[in-house]
Parts: sequence; C-alpha cells; structure tokens
Amino acid sequence: EISNDLIDGLVIVHGAGSFGHPPAKKYKIGEPFEMKDYLEKRIGFAEVQNEVKKLNSIICESLIEHGIPVIAIPPSSFITSHNKRIYDFDLNLIKTYLREGFVPVLFGDVVIDDEVKIAVISGDQVLQYIAKFLKSDRIVLGTDVAGVYTKNPKTHDDAVHIDEVNSIEDIKFLESTTNVDVTGGMVGKVKELLDLADYGISSEIINANEEGAILKALQGMEVNGTKICRK
Amino acid sequence: EISNDLIDGLVIVHGAGSFGHPPAKKYKIGEPFEMKDYLEKRIGFAEVQNEVKKLNSIICESLIEHGIPVIAIPPSSFITSHNKRIYDFDLNLIKTYLREGFVPVLFGDVVIDDEVKIAVISGDQVLQYIAKFLKSDRIVLGTDVAGVYTKNPKTHDDAVHIDEVNSIEDIKFLESTTNVDVTGGMVGKVKELLDLADYGISSEIINANEEGAILKALQGMEVNGTKICRK
Repeated sequence: EISNDLIDGLVIVHGAGSFGHPPAKKYKIGEPFEMKDYLEKRIGFAEVQNEVKKLNSIICESLIEHGIPVIAIPPSSFITSHNKRIYDFDLNLIKTYLREGFVPVLFGDVVIDDEVKIAVISGDQVLQYIAKFLKSDRIVLGTDVAGVYTKNPKTHDDAVHIDEVNSIEDIKFLESTTNVDVTGGMVGKVKELLDLADYGISSEIINANEEGAILKALQGMEVNGTKICRK
Repeated sequence: EISNDLIDGLVIVHGAGSFGHPPAKKYKIGEPFEMKDYLEKRIGFAEVQNEVKKLNSIICESLIEHGIPVIAIPPSSFITSHNKRIYDFDLNLIKTYLREGFVPVLFGDVVIDDEVKIAVISGDQVLQYIAKFLKSDRIVLGTDVAGVYTKNPKTHDDAVHIDEVNSIEDIKFLESTTNVDVTGGMVGKVKELLDLADYGISSEIINANEEGAILKALQGMEVNGTKICRK
C-alpha cells in the first residue's frame, strides 16, 4: 500500500487527456462563437465535462485500489473564469478535505466564463492556482518526458535537457518546436509554473512514465526533471 | 429532441441507486465509528463517491444524447453537513448555470460532516434543500411506484393509493410497511417533501417508469401520483 508512505496534504491534479480533448476540439470549446450557436456550445460543454469525469473516475478507482482516500472535486462545480483565467474562488472545502486526511483530486475541465461564456481550464492552470492559494511546499508536474528539452526529445535525438528554467526567455525557442495540445503543451505548463515561481514557489516537471518516479515524488524524494524557479 | 420542450430553470437530482448503496453498506458509511477506523472509512467514502459518479456519468450521457445541456455538480464538491443534515452552502454557481441555460444535475452523495465526520446525503435531501433555496415552482420526485400507497403496491394487491399527504400523521402507518433503503425509502422522501411544504412549496411523487411520465412532467403537464402539501 502506497498510502502509508504518502506525504501529508497531498493534492492531485490531472489533465483532460484523450477523454476531454476530442469533444473540446469537435465543438471548438474555447474559441469565440456567436450567441446563436450557444445551445450547441452548451451541449459541447456538457460532453467535455462528462468525458473528463469518466477519466477522473478511472484515475480515482486506481488510487482507491492503492489505498488512497481520494475525493474528486471538479473545477466546473466551484470555479468560474474571467477571460479564460480562473479568478478568486472558495478553497475552504479543499482545505477541509485535506484537514480530514483526504487527497483532493482536481483536473482540467470546462467552466463558465463571464466574458467568453465557456472556457477550457487546463490542469496546469488549476495546479498553479491551487498551489498558489494553498501555499504548497512542493509542486511536481508529471508528463511524458523528463521536463524541458531544446527540442522534442521523442522526435529529435539531439534534444538537450534543460535542468532549470528561470524565465520565459529561457523557453522562447520552444514556442514552435513542441507539440501543442488544446491547453498549451509544454510551453503552457512552463508558463503556469513560472507564474507560480513569481510567488516564491518552485516546481519540477518530471517524466511520470519513468518507473517509480511518481512514487519517489510522493515520498518526497528527488526525481530527475526540470526545475522551474525564479533566480 | 426533448430539449426544445424543456421548461426553463430545470434542475435534476438523482439518487445513488445500485451504484452507491453497496459500498455505503460495505463500509457502514453513515453509522457511528471510532477514530481508529477513520482511514478505512475514508476509503469507503472515496469508493461511494466514485461509484455514484459513474452512475451520474451514465445519466448525463443519456441526457446529452437527448440534447439536454447538463452540468453535473456533485454535492461532495460544495456541501458539508451538520449531524447528517445539509446546512447553509453557496448556490450561486447553480444559479449561474441556470442563468446560462444549463441543466444542473445533482445527486445523493457522501459529504464531510462536522459532527459525525462522514455522512450520506440522499438525493431526496438534496432535492429538498435546492428546491427550498431556489424557490422552485414545481417539484417532481420520480420513483418506481406512482406515489404513496397504504402498503407496498408491488407486494400487496390491496394497497390503496393516497392522492395527497398533508402531514407526517398521514403516513405514520407506513413506517414499517415499506422497503427502506440506506437513505430512507418512501418515508424518507415524504419527510423531505413535507419539510418543503412547510416553506409553501408543494410537490408530487410520480412513477418514473410509467411510459412518458417524465417527459410529461418536464413539459409542465400533470402526471398521476401523490401530492405533498400542507393544508
């Protein structure tokens, strides 16, 4: 059982992945639209929310099987956004769950936006927001590569690993070289984490597929990756 | 498409059904426990939440296929309770979704309780609470019989239908005659709706399995059942 080794006050945030992205793309959720298309957009919103919930259910099931008392909290049930950015919302319930020994699980989701009506909020943005307001000690972002490289390491043998990113200048060259998903890909992740670094909170991007990496991180150990921090 | 016929400002509340009750029973969620058993109870809480979410996902999928722009809002992500009863919580997000033309879907769920730590909140209690605070015009509770009978109509041929219930006295004889699930069965439903009647809000219990009954109700038409109201 992993549960006995877990660090206290753990919060898990996952993305929308292959569940959320297809309906988001199909209905062009996140792009500007005319009010006459609002009913169709709402159906798209509903579909994205429901698909992401299915992914969340699979993830939670696996965590429960490992003895982790998770509590799923969908951003769409307590967050709204302003021009695609989360603004002030109530984190008290998350704090209550943490105090009671639960592990809150949040994820990339669709939310109501007071300007563009409907917005996609990436898991990366949720992570940044939650970490900032809970004043997290350690942020580990797991993805499918061991952090930031000069080129996509999956397609380029000469990709060089970057151990530390201190500013947006350090990743300018990346803008056009990495695969970009609907929520921003690697550049999006680094931007969110740099926002966090501005609040004095350092973070790491690691390869979640690397054998034992997540477990090591959950136990508070060092893992290979890229550190995101201000100098 | 049902969606064009829908009354405005619809909120749907469903139960935990065959998904939520087995793990709730297995872990005795809702019963008193000692603190040394809290980790196991938390795992039970997590399981119930995840199972109910799966049921919710199936229901939402069906509603979306019928063109209804649903938004699932799990009680566990915005409600806490005091001694197994919901107390004051923020309904603003539900109001926002309604204003934007969505159909919020809530359900029976597990929540954090400030006295008993973990509580099961029935869909019936959620319905009562939401209806009260949204000042709903019409409440329709769909179940598997056409309202209240003197005996369980499924097992007793001489069960007599009760057209109207005005007080708890009217159903006193029911306490021991109907099947009672973890969240209270028919007596529990009537009690919640009598609470609502005290606020001047009448409601109906109908047979959701009756061909076309739900559609008729959604279109604002009369359906056979039992009316719950104060005289």
